[in-house]
Amino acid sequence: MKITRPTLLADRRIILSNIDRLSGKFQAQKIRFRPHFKTHQSEVVGDFFRNKCQGITVSSVEMAEYFAARNWDDITIAFPANPLEKSAIEKLSESVNLNLIVSDPATLHEFDDLNKPLNWWIKVDLGNHRAGIKPEKTEEIIQLARQMLKSKTHSFKGILGHAGQTYHLQSEQVVQEENRAIQVAESLRKKIQDVLDTRCEVSMGDTPGCSLLKDWQKIDEVRPGNFVFYDLMQMGIGSCDFSQIAMVMACPIVQVRKDENKAVIHGGAIHFSKEYHPEFKYGQLAVPNDSGAYSELMENSFLESISQEHGIISFDPKYASLFSTSKLAYVLPVHSCLTVDCMREYYLLPDLERATTYRY
Amino acid sequence: MKITRPTLLADRRIILSNIDRLSGKFQAQKIRFRPHFKTHQSEVVGDFFRNKCQGITVSSVEMAEYFAARNWDDITIAFPANPLEKSAIEKLSESVNLNLIVSDPATLHEFDDLNKPLNWWIKVDLGNHRAGIKPEKTEEIIQLARQMLKSKTHSFKGILGHAGQTYHLQSEQVVQEENRAIQVAESLRKKIQDVLDTRCEVSMGDTPGCSLLKDWQKIDEVRPGNFVFYDLMQMGIGSCDFSQIAMVMACPIVQVRKDENKAVIHGGAIHFSKEYHPEFKYGQLAVPNDSGAYSELMENSFLESISQEHGIISFDPKYASLFSTSKLAYVLPVHSCLTVDCMREYYLLPDLERATTYRY
Repeated sequence: MKITRPTLLADRRIILSNIDRLSGKFQAQKIRFRPHFKTHQSEVVGDFFRNKCQGITVSSVEMAEYFAARNWDDITIAFPANPLEKSAIEKLSESVNLNLIVSDPATLHEFDDLNKPLNWWIKVDLGNHRAGIKPEKTEEIIQLARQMLKSKTHSFKGILGHAGQTYHLQSEQVVQEENRAIQVAESLRKKIQDVLDTRCEVSMGDTPGCSLLKDWQKIDEVRPGNFVFYDLMQMGIGSCDFSQIAMVMACPIVQVRKDENKAVIHGGAIHFSKEYHPEFKYGQLAVPNDSGAYSELMENSFLESISQEHGIISFDPKYASLFSTSKLAYVLPVHSCLTVDCMREYYLLPDLERATTYRY
Repeated sequence: MKITRPTLLADRRIILSNIDRLSGKFQAQKIRFRPHFKTHQSEVVGDFFRNKCQGITVSSVEMAEYFAARNWDDITIAFPANPLEKSAIEKLSESVNLNLIVSDPATLHEFDDLNKPLNWWIKVDLGNHRAGIKPEKTEEIIQLARQMLKSKTHSFKGILGHAGQTYHLQSEQVVQEENRAIQVAESLRKKIQDVLDTRCEVSMGDTPGCSLLKDWQKIDEVRPGNFVFYDLMQMGIGSCDFSQIAMVMACPIVQVRKDENKAVIHGGAIHFSKEYHPEFKYGQLAVPNDSGAYSELMENSFLESISQEHGIISFDPKYASLFSTSKLAYVLPVHSCLTVDCMREYYLLPDLERATTYRY
């Protein structure tokens, strides 16, 4: 395969190592590992998780349908259940053990008349301020759990949160913040169990927290996703180092602006997404090696700006010999999940096996 | 068709009116109208341009292949010619009148041995500072034109530019800046014609300039793209008003945070792209009307933040009755080109005819 257009590459060896490290960590602590498949989005990489996890997480009904059709039979849709998708959800529930999340009684009520019981998690806001009920509204949460317990078609599993605020922190702060969120969840779980006299599980755990925090034993289930590839954003947080980043975009260089140490590449917003990082801009370059992979970060060399198809690279003069038309620039993405979603296909190094995603 | 998931809608009546207005304007001035198809990306909307343009523009060989297969036979690929795609380009040139752009002699040289002559435009940097040769390097430009004129396989057409800096300006400044760019191009054209004693055409014209500047008579060809749908970014520039925006995303509301006047929608970065605008955030809401379309802007109501699938809307309290679970929120995109690229399919109002794109 000759690369002639922007092509997303993912290093199989690094992926497998990332999976083994995290699945091993949680297995050792006897915690259910339910990785989020919204990052890789593909049956090919999904298969690398076989026998290494106890169920999977997805972010939409559409993604659940894709993985259900590929023999994943225990799926959590970690996005607020949408009554408009009720018939699709009902169909899915016939073939897989389906777990849904909800945060208000009216939505739950919309699902009262399903034929098959569904597993429900109450979505709580563990500091991310996106979706869910704030933990201080304990009475509201308990009331919703009670509604599930009283129903024949709803099975109450526990509380589910995503401390996504860790994405804006660094190393030590991530550990502190994740511990704070765990304490909040733990305290809420106790209250629910005391009042309702029922088992209440806790599901949480994002990539920064799962990478950096050692002890997860208070938690029943973790759902990190990004760690499978990692990216520059995670490297900035301290969740990973360069050697653990499994994803790079190979982009043809189409013009070199020599006097400025800049190059124009085929690689823009429709390939990388417009995720911007103050330190890494729209991406940092890696030095390609002889085997078509990448072995080191290119210092002071960034994807400085992007439009729909064009990217402008600013490179350190010491790398000037690597930049000429018809060569490839290797750019590490800021956010691998969105880059995968933009491309919908990628090739696994070293053999370039093709992986397509659920939206392909 | 019942909308249950994020669904991109485009109003056929507004699209046709946008096309008629601009094609009429340039027809009246006898200027070649070569619209950029990177915005709508679809054969369905492409067909609305039949007999209203004299060729089309695309931003990649892949997009050219898609439209060539759909009976578009005069195509300019307004992206620097990439020698790695030479065989694909050669194949394309057998079925269509293909126009390419180039800015360095080495790249042009790579195409010397093609069987069929190609039409070449020299890409000049008219102030956008992205790709192309700076106009002050006149000798370099003339030398490249000379290389074309001497060759049997290269046909020299003229100079091509994109004054994309207008995207960062507003109304009056757009007109001034576009006029300045036209003068630069015009002066360069004269020098080339004087020195080489050959005809040199000028191709330029972005959506802000083509919408706002009245007199284009010095220019041979214009290539606006975004005007087919427009979007909030263009409204911010002053290129269009609300009634000319043809595109909206219908997003299921999945949670209402009443005390905060916020709502969680299914609609995030994989649907809208992460294009952010200081005034419009990730999108502004429109008030849905009874016919499933939208009739007015919702004041002070924005898509405030997005992650992969989630969007958080902040709405003016006077619209509170429009926000409840299972209803749809109508969000105008900041940048229609990237939103179309994220979705790869959209539905035309009022009959909901489906349009899929070249990347679908």
